[in-house]
Amino acid sequence: MGQLVDVFARRALLVVKGANVPRGVNDLAHRSETTSATAVGFEPSAKAASLLNKLKHFMHAHVYKAEEELEAHAITPERWSVSPAVESLKTAAKSAGLWNLWLPLDSAALLKIRPNDGEESTLFAGPGLTNLEYAYLAEVMGASVWASEAFNCSAPDTGNMEVLLRYGSVEQQERWLRPLLTGEIRSCFAMTEPAVASSDATNIESAIAREGSDYVLNGRKWWTSGACDPRCKVIIFMGKTAKDGSGVAKHRQQSMVLCPMDAPGVRVVRPLTVFGYDDAPHGHAEVTFTNVRVDAAASILLGEGRGFEIAQGRLGPGRLHHCMRLIGMGERALELASARAKSRVAFGKPLAENGAVLQRLGQCRVTLDGARLLTLQAAHELDARGIKLARGAVAACKVAAPAAALSVIDAAIQIHGGAGVSQDTPLARLYAGARTLRLADGPDEVHLETIAKMEIRRSKL
Amino acid sequence: MGQLVDVFARRALLVVKGANVPRGVNDLAHRSETTSATAVGFEPSAKAASLLNKLKHFMHAHVYKAEEELEAHAITPERWSVSPAVESLKTAAKSAGLWNLWLPLDSAALLKIRPNDGEESTLFAGPGLTNLEYAYLAEVMGASVWASEAFNCSAPDTGNMEVLLRYGSVEQQERWLRPLLTGEIRSCFAMTEPAVASSDATNIESAIAREGSDYVLNGRKWWTSGACDPRCKVIIFMGKTAKDGSGVAKHRQQSMVLCPMDAPGVRVVRPLTVFGYDDAPHGHAEVTFTNVRVDAAASILLGEGRGFEIAQGRLGPGRLHHCMRLIGMGERALELASARAKSRVAFGKPLAENGAVLQRLGQCRVTLDGARLLTLQAAHELDARGIKLARGAVAACKVAAPAAALSVIDAAIQIHGGAGVSQDTPLARLYAGARTLRLADGPDEVHLETIAKMEIRRSKL
Amino acid sequence: MGQLVDVFARRALLVVKGANVPRGVNDLAHRSETTSATAVGFEPSAKAASLLNKLKHFMHAHVYKAEEELEAHAITPERWSVSPAVESLKTAAKSAGLWNLWLPLDSAALLKIRPNDGEESTLFAGPGLTNLEYAYLAEVMGASVWASEAFNCSAPDTGNMEVLLRYGSVEQQERWLRPLLTGEIRSCFAMTEPAVASSDATNIESAIAREGSDYVLNGRKWWTSGACDPRCKVIIFMGKTAKDGSGVAKHRQQSMVLCPMDAPGVRVVRPLTVFGYDDAPHGHAEVTFTNVRVDAAASILLGEGRGFEIAQGRLGPGRLHHCMRLIGMGERALELASARAKSRVAFGKPLAENGAVLQRLGQCRVTLDGARLLTLQAAHELDARGIKLARGAVAACKVAAPAAALSVIDAAIQIHGGAGVSQDTPLARLYAGARTLRLADGPDEVHLETIAKMEIRRSKL
Amino acid sequence: MGQLVDVFARRALLVVKGANVPRGVNDLAHRSETTSATAVGFEPSAKAASLLNKLKHFMHAHVYKAEEELEAHAITPERWSVSPAVESLKTAAKSAGLWNLWLPLDSAALLKIRPNDGEESTLFAGPGLTNLEYAYLAEVMGASVWASEAFNCSAPDTGNMEVLLRYGSVEQQERWLRPLLTGEIRSCFAMTEPAVASSDATNIESAIAREGSDYVLNGRKWWTSGACDPRCKVIIFMGKTAKDGSGVAKHRQQSMVLCPMDAPGVRVVRPLTVFGYDDAPHGHAEVTFTNVRVDAAASILLGEGRGFEIAQGRLGPGRLHHCMRLIGMGERALELASARAKSRVAFGKPLAENGAVLQRLGQCRVTLDGARLLTLQAAHELDARGIKLARGAVAACKVAAPAAALSVIDAAIQIHGGAGVSQDTPLARLYAGARTLRLADGPDEVHLETIAKMEIRRSKL
Repeated sequence: MGQLVDVFARRALLVVKGANVPRGVNDLAHRSETTSATAVGFEPSAKAASLLNKLKHFMHAHVYKAEEELEAHAITPERWSVSPAVESLKTAAKSAGLWNLWLPLDSAALLKIRPNDGEESTLFAGPGLTNLEYAYLAEVMGASVWASEAFNCSAPDTGNMEVLLRYGSVEQQERWLRPLLTGEIRSCFAMTEPAVASSDATNIESAIAREGSDYVLNGRKWWTSGACDPRCKVIIFMGKTAKDGSGVAKHRQQSMVLCPMDAPGVRVVRPLTVFGYDDAPHGHAEVTFTNVRVDAAASILLGEGRGFEIAQGRLGPGRLHHCMRLIGMGERALELASARAKSRVAFGKPLAENGAVLQRLGQCRVTLDGARLLTLQAAHELDARGIKLARGAVAACKVAAPAAALSVIDAAIQIHGGAGVSQDTPLARLYAGARTLRLADGPDEVHLETIAKMEIRRSKL
Repeated sequence: MGQLVDVFARRALLVVKGANVPRGVNDLAHRSETTSATAVGFEPSAKAASLLNKLKHFMHAHVYKAEEELEAHAITPERWSVSPAVESLKTAAKSAGLWNLWLPLDSAALLKIRPNDGEESTLFAGPGLTNLEYAYLAEVMGASVWASEAFNCSAPDTGNMEVLLRYGSVEQQERWLRPLLTGEIRSCFAMTEPAVASSDATNIESAIAREGSDYVLNGRKWWTSGACDPRCKVIIFMGKTAKDGSGVAKHRQQSMVLCPMDAPGVRVVRPLTVFGYDDAPHGHAEVTFTNVRVDAAASILLGEGRGFEIAQGRLGPGRLHHCMRLIGMGERALELASARAKSRVAFGKPLAENGAVLQRLGQCRVTLDGARLLTLQAAHELDARGIKLARGAVAACKVAAPAAALSVIDAAIQIHGGAGVSQDTPLARLYAGARTLRLADGPDEVHLETIAKMEIRRSKL
Repeated sequence: MGQLVDVFARRALLVVKGANVPRGVNDLAHRSETTSATAVGFEPSAKAASLLNKLKHFMHAHVYKAEEELEAHAITPERWSVSPAVESLKTAAKSAGLWNLWLPLDSAALLKIRPNDGEESTLFAGPGLTNLEYAYLAEVMGASVWASEAFNCSAPDTGNMEVLLRYGSVEQQERWLRPLLTGEIRSCFAMTEPAVASSDATNIESAIAREGSDYVLNGRKWWTSGACDPRCKVIIFMGKTAKDGSGVAKHRQQSMVLCPMDAPGVRVVRPLTVFGYDDAPHGHAEVTFTNVRVDAAASILLGEGRGFEIAQGRLGPGRLHHCMRLIGMGERALELASARAKSRVAFGKPLAENGAVLQRLGQCRVTLDGARLLTLQAAHELDARGIKLARGAVAACKVAAPAAALSVIDAAIQIHGGAGVSQDTPLARLYAGARTLRLADGPDEVHLETIAKMEIRRSKL
Repeated sequence: MGQLVDVFARRALLVVKGANVPRGVNDLAHRSETTSATAVGFEPSAKAASLLNKLKHFMHAHVYKAEEELEAHAITPERWSVSPAVESLKTAAKSAGLWNLWLPLDSAALLKIRPNDGEESTLFAGPGLTNLEYAYLAEVMGASVWASEAFNCSAPDTGNMEVLLRYGSVEQQERWLRPLLTGEIRSCFAMTEPAVASSDATNIESAIAREGSDYVLNGRKWWTSGACDPRCKVIIFMGKTAKDGSGVAKHRQQSMVLCPMDAPGVRVVRPLTVFGYDDAPHGHAEVTFTNVRVDAAASILLGEGRGFEIAQGRLGPGRLHHCMRLIGMGERALELASARAKSRVAFGKPLAENGAVLQRLGQCRVTLDGARLLTLQAAHELDARGIKLARGAVAACKVAAPAAALSVIDAAIQIHGGAGVSQDTPLARLYAGARTLRLADGPDEVHLETIAKMEIRRSKL
């Protein structure tokens, strides 16, 4: 024990001399981070940080400025045509090198390996990012409902492109993937059906019947987002190539086929509204397929009976992209709420001096930061462990991110008063979008049940 | 554009051949993590992981087994004496090398630098961990209200030891720090006063009056945790050495002095209860100081007027330790809830097959994981940026962690029925502790206001 | 004590004989209600019950059936014209004697006292109901956003008619009240301004300047609901006839004047949206008044400087009518949710067999019934004690009713999946309306503060 | 239409003359309440109002004053003895005519019908109140955990007395009911068992086996509240007189028997704690019954196989009494919170001037008033329609009242800081009690499911 005393003595000496021992209030807390060679916590990589910087600049220089014009266009009778402002944004984004940011690293690599690839293809291949790297960028895009499209990063095109990239034949890629990657055309994904609970993909009832060398498609789909857009040229259609009772396993009865938007028998019945918004010209369509004929060999994706498999893979990163954007939606709302609190005077003082407003803003920040970390964590797990092992983490952020965004947006609406529900702020539109994401890609309840069952399995009892 | 086609062709070829391109459902999601050389996300370092493993083993081998005996002792009339089980745990923990894990890296380094340090002093110096590394361990300790003491990691001793280590003189360290580090004695911290709002340290009214070479202490303190313990030998007393109107700045009027527990004039008036628990033998005491005399030079810490400064530094990591343990409290509750759901049959089926129970368990996991990430992030920021810059992050987890723990524990209580509120599970005791932590070290409201003001300052308006 | 034994003996005897003492499980609970001659609890009076019955029948026979057509019309480009379906409903409602139900008893009495009143005027005077009696009816109307207008019971016309009835001159009544009571024209109320926090009526800045025998109106108003309707012919305009610093007390600077919709200088700038709804043809307008001239004597209501006074009185019952309708909105949502839970199959069983769905439906019922009772209680207090003494009760239901409706509607949306946010159910439209009512007529925060201050004043400390 | 004009003319005339038409701000809101001869809303009857007045006075004059002494006694080692303060309160309550207030009207009537009943028996029969009348009084009692016993209105004695009154034989009444009514002895109710989910009474496993003229009782019970009290002399024991598979219907296998507390084989194993409270001397006991013999004829209540039936009837009003008291618990907490907000200064101003505190107090009032109305409504339905038809209303308040009380008490704790969780305020004890009432008499989940199923049945789909 004698040694210990000496240690103390030496320590005390150092204190007295004020030598190389840090002092002051912060000392107690500030432990050196040199312990571990491994960096920890979530910080964007250098590559992501550089893009993030460029992206934020672009948002301020272009996107936010265009919002008023886009919102105005969106409530005119002409809203079903494409606003020139959108195409301008796309052109500017390409020039800025902010294009196809969503494309995963390995996919992007495939597109770049040819030695004599031109500059253009490099652009269209995007920078090639991990899910985690992309998360920081997608968050920023989420801040404006108009942003993702500007960077060719919007659903359902991203998921459809990924499917084509992974599972498309040369011919399918040439015909559909190329113009999608360049932003010339758009696409839609016809899976959900009004007649059945779509949270379970095996429920779908639409038919893909083989007749000679054709498939004949029949069915009623809805929430086929993007189908109303005049630029939408192709549908990924999910239907059943085998029936119940046919001996084919439940998860192998579904197939996906490509169907041109202008194929006879395809009818966009109507756009659905989302809290009064029709999201024109994109639109969430109800679409009927009546004896629609497509060439079987040219249309099938991956193979008959592989539809469920493709759907599962497609949904993983897709869910995550939504969550990333939701955090950005919350950030936008919180920024607006803070600015409003700072400037708006009620009952003789700025809202920012009202204790209740402060409590709410503080809680918004806590809630949002928690949801962001869950989302980054899920992106990280998806990168590091694959979707099967990351399933719980993805489900958790799919529950947390919409809830966080909604609570922040709702608080921001309340702080804005009447302006909050109107077209004069983006809040109500953000709310409608976020609320829908508690349902899309599986309602909260399904994800919570997934998580709970993992928890119970883990219980050693 | 011709090049791009070739790329697709090559890609498609690879697909057909099934060559070196990964296939299957997971492909879409599983992006290579090799992009970035920097590891990301939160994983314990190798050093922390090894201790974590050892610690978890110890919890199962020793702590959980002792809980029933400790709980039983805690409701007998003899509870104000130290249970032999606690001292056994301490001995076992020392043997296992699980001692003073809370000691920060740099502090620990100071204690170990002498070439001829014996093994014992090495043990007492602890492994030397960053806040982030310690977070993983503190979480595990939080799972049992009895655990922290076993590893000499319990409040208020850790904070007091840190203060002595940083600001104590050789004599003060020799007299009080040494036996605290070895676990021979315990200590308490007399700051909060019943008469004033203690969330603002400048409110305290107790007096430290200079008389000759002595200080004379007078005042009424409460929530002086640990003062009832027979092993408690020393008090860090906070009082005013200067009065309002004396010309001394508001934050320089407070000082901290060391006061032996047995000094004449110190009276433990009574233990306070926390939801009916008196946390014997530790106890949360109301203590009066009536003309208590201590030698000024031997007792003063850091210097007159430095009390507020010490308090601020002491609270940073302290708050974080509480948050870490709160996550562990939540984990314990969730584990118990899952096990109960698995085993308990009601209305003809296990609770785990009831959709409502699943929703609740799933939500518990989401809430808890969000709060853990906020806590890890705060620990990381404290390590990397110091307490001043980490202030927002620490405040956020100080709000989120108790709230998360409480919601999980409350759900677990509900799932347990009557057993949940009784001594037959640790849940009610955990609840009482977690609820108190929405008040201790600053109530939620103070932290939320801190966060909100940062948010508003950041607003560019 | 001997007597007591006898009592027991006699009692036991009765039990044995099973004579006139009620038996069975319910006995313990079923206490005779004959104690008190006073009926208690909330039941509609005979008069209200009869109207309620008729009204419910009408809703099913007419209103619900028209909803699909009305919703369809509301999303076409023609939506700014009046749908013929609305006028049909009005005609049918008049025939059914369901007209001007909102008219308070005493007002109605005034309209009926002439001995030779014809049948028509009796109809237009409505049945004359207390606030409490009307509450049951307004709830039923709330179930459909289109219903209130059918019965000439919709805001802002009801409030405007009441103002004209109470404070209008013979000429004003003849010109505007008569066609409003008969449903020939509609009206709007221009009070809220975009530039100032409108929760405090003394903030308004629009000017009513006297020039000769005219008033000249200038200002920018918004949330002037109804101004877009082609049938809207008259505006009640609130502005300042005296300025700050003029020596006139803060609450006496405002006046209300009647202004024809077609007066030169009145411009409907645009309809505001509520979430994505524009509530055409009604519309929530931004309206500018630029040097609008009206004859002072013919236009002023009650007198110069009485504007604030009229506004206060107008808001009391108005708030309550909103609350009543909100309960009905919640009931509609709960009815839809229950029906959906009963019919929709997911994961192999009806949602109604999922424990989580049951918990949510149960909680909806509890929440909604609590809010209804608060609303009925406020209506009762308004009837019995007047608005000043009923202020706390009205504020309480103004907080509780929107919150309850929103939580029920949100649950119903979740249970409906995608259909819930679309035009295929009334839920999203109901949500948008209910959310706005957490802001309109004073945001929650203002009402909660009113209540809290009453509570603190009451505190005896 | 000509008539209508005249009406207006006359009306306007009156306005001008200011004759008999009321004027001013309130007019719009203040409708005459003379419409309906039926009083509406919830007001105590004259009889209840008079008792309420007396009771409130007694609370202030006696109960609140005794609280400090009772709380102090409750944390000493002597707490398992009866505090003299309790017996003093009882004596004072009898003198004040505040005794057995819970006794229902018809039961009370039976006890009073003998012409020559003495004054004493009249006192013990109580005033005879409806459930609704009693609700106002029980609320006031709920404000102090010590109050109900003072008025002989505490569980489980009230339920047990009611059972004896309804179903007891002359001998059983003479032996047990009389001393219970006079407050000489106390009783307990042994139903819940640790081994099975007790929310379903058919789960119980304890045995009542017939052997000759005896019953032999075996089983382990817990949450047998009151069993630790030295005054507790009798147990109502619920067990099975028939087994599964015996051909006896599931709901007819249970019986209730009376068992003296001192019968050989009855062992109070230990008191359970509720959070850290043991509620001494009352106590919530675990009790084992090992071959306990009682005379069958003298002990059986109502008859073999009638246990479930008695239990159902017993629980209805019992649940309601708890709800009534919960409202009072919330009122007490809100009163304390308001007083604290008024007096406590933090950061330079009273808490009552902090917007966040005001929001919370306001919300407490709204929540509490909603829950009270639900409770009064349930009491009214129980009186008017019997327990079967009032089932939904009782379930609703059993969910709403604990939740409301908990949220108010929790807010009050937060406003009090450390004092809130300690013995220096009644808040923590109230919280523990209220939290337990989310479990006792059926957990929330069971009641919500009951309500939801009624809702779904009602759905016309």
